Amino acid sequence: MHKTLIALAALAAASPALPQASAAIASGKAQPSPLAPSEIVAQAPKADWTGIAASDLLVMDLAPDAKGKPRRVVIQLMPAPFSQGWIGNIRKLAAARFWDGTAVNRVQDNYVVQWGDPEAEDKAKAKVLPAGLVTVPESDYTAKNVSIQFETKRASLAGAYAVTLNVAQGGDFTQIEPFGDPYANLSGSYGGWPLGFSLGNSEIWPVHCYGMVGVGRDLSPNTGTGAELYVVIGHAPRHLDRNIALVGRVIEGIEHLTSLPRGKGALGFYDLEQGDERTGIVSIRLGAEVKGLPTYEYLSTESQSFAKYADARANRRDAFFIRPAGGADICNIPVPVRRSTGSR
Amino acid sequence: MHKTLIALAALAAASPALPQASAAIASGKAQPSPLAPSEIVAQAPKADWTGIAASDLLVMDLAPDAKGKPRRVVIQLMPAPFSQGWIGNIRKLAAARFWDGTAVNRVQDNYVVQWGDPEAEDKAKAKVLPAGLVTVPESDYTAKNVSIQFETKRASLAGAYAVTLNVAQGGDFTQIEPFGDPYANLSGSYGGWPLGFSLGNSEIWPVHCYGMVGVGRDLSPNTGTGAELYVVIGHAPRHLDRNIALVGRVIEGIEHLTSLPRGKGALGFYDLEQGDERTGIVSIRLGAEVKGLPTYEYLSTESQSFAKYADARANRRDAFFIRPAGGADICNIPVPVRRSTGSR
Repeated sequence: MHKTLIALAALAAASPALPQASAAIASGKAQPSPLAPSEIVAQAPKADWTGIAASDLLVMDLAPDAKGKPRRVVIQLMPAPFSQGWIGNIRKLAAARFWDGTAVNRVQDNYVVQWGDPEAEDKAKAKVLPAGLVTVPESDYTAKNVSIQFETKRASLAGAYAVTLNVAQGGDFTQIEPFGDPYANLSGSYGGWPLGFSLGNSEIWPVHCYGMVGVGRDLSPNTGTGAELYVVIGHAPRHLDRNIALVGRVIEGIEHLTSLPRGKGALGFYDLEQGDERTGIVSIRLGAEVKGLPTYEYLSTESQSFAKYADARANRRDAFFIRPAGGADICNIPVPVRRSTGSR
Repeated sequence: MHKTLIALAALAAASPALPQASAAIASGKAQPSPLAPSEIVAQAPKADWTGIAASDLLVMDLAPDAKGKPRRVVIQLMPAPFSQGWIGNIRKLAAARFWDGTAVNRVQDNYVVQWGDPEAEDKAKAKVLPAGLVTVPESDYTAKNVSIQFETKRASLAGAYAVTLNVAQGGDFTQIEPFGDPYANLSGSYGGWPLGFSLGNSEIWPVHCYGMVGVGRDLSPNTGTGAELYVVIGHAPRHLDRNIALVGRVIEGIEHLTSLPRGKGALGFYDLEQGDERTGIVSIRLGAEVKGLPTYEYLSTESQSFAKYADARANRRDAFFIRPAGGADICNIPVPVRRSTGSR
């Protein structure tokens, strides 16, 4: 165990569980410290995990790296009621092998990595889009017609509240309160995704957290087809919420995108004349088409384990911390996703 | 101008100003759209910019990249009343050439890049620290003894408030209200830095935004010497606020750190046995020691231009946007820093 303790903070934030014993020893305390978020996740019962269907995965294989090693990025597509028009297009694009031979065209530091047809803007050279793509209206940036009824009651967890919503799709909406969100009346996790919503007009929408995948578009009223996609690689650009379509998130291999050289052109677009070299995309396939693909699962956002995890993210009491924040923003409570394990 | 408009969003967010004319043309509108944040910054009068003294810069030269190109990272150290004990140590470490020949030892995706003596944990191999380093108390994670008096009044800018504080160091505290911050009673920009503070005990502290530089430490009560430093490369890990020292921010060259391969070891530490290769640090010097260093300036957070910029970040009305957020979090209103220009 490396001794430098910004390390321990990271361990709790994003890494395999630290055994309580060593935490107690490391902290020199007789009593083990409270569980770190990663420990709560590691100890969550199998029943609190929800499997992700292969048909909801998008698998992007980049050209091998400089050492010839494969670079695979796995994306989970969002479920209804969100962005289904664009996701339908993305399924058609993948089935048509549209992205094979395209490239990563843009890497802007602290913003996005974007990929698609490098010649998309040149009608003479652009790849032909498959037939049947639909044009999705801007109104689909959010889900509406959801009846929202509130019962805000303090949960058993200190510092956490539970908010129950009856939405068209049913289920609970787990929210951490009373933390403010500058971008929404409320924000929280529901159905495995980070969401914001407005009480005024009963709108609910996915939010731009690190790793979320969206659809590049032209100026309004254009909403994009899904042929050009981007992933957030910096601080959450929440100002994009409700202004552009989000269709999923990277659940494995994001480091193959975040560590790419930043583009020297405007907005981080690769400029070949300035020596930038695009990273090629060998293929993008729906998970159901990929042989030998692992199965994945996420920690149910409606589970008690998630509520405990979210509370621990907002009130860090594990060995490294001396002052719990007493709050957290929605993008700092990422939904845990892992390769499926056996029952435990 | 690339046509895909996640591009325009980025342009407004982080790039050189887009001429109004082309914005109007691009959007097909007869009237030019309201200024993007980047345009407000580009048009800010010279008087609204504050120079950064070379003595407050730390210049890190990494080993050249695979193509032999130099990789320089420029860090601005924080002013009083923040973290001066650690910053004093950092000045001693730089003067003693402590970091020459050390390395980047850790790159954890969506968290931090960390550097220092790879052998720091091995007493037999560790480099000897220079004499005169001080041990800084945990109480210095925040600045206290600041008398805070509130006058909250709506400013001339729609959606923005101005909060005037009388602190020991004087000056105004520019805050964007009524946006909530889950990590502080209030947060905003003061003296050129993103800060949070507590009304209860009159504490004020720097916050962990993208690009901020902090001091690795062991478990409490250890607070770190400053010999091991990290920079935030992902979504703001605000839970670290008041738990660890922040000493500055990267103002140029952060892409040389953020695009490094992620470490394969626990917490993103480089594991040589797994094939990771550390990036060497040729030297780290105080700016005053570096010949030919450019001069830098930041947009005064007490200027009207900054207030307009912050309001525009929170209420995007430029061509790309169809629904302004009506709010922003402190880390999504980064203080503009640039190489100094002539008067304009």
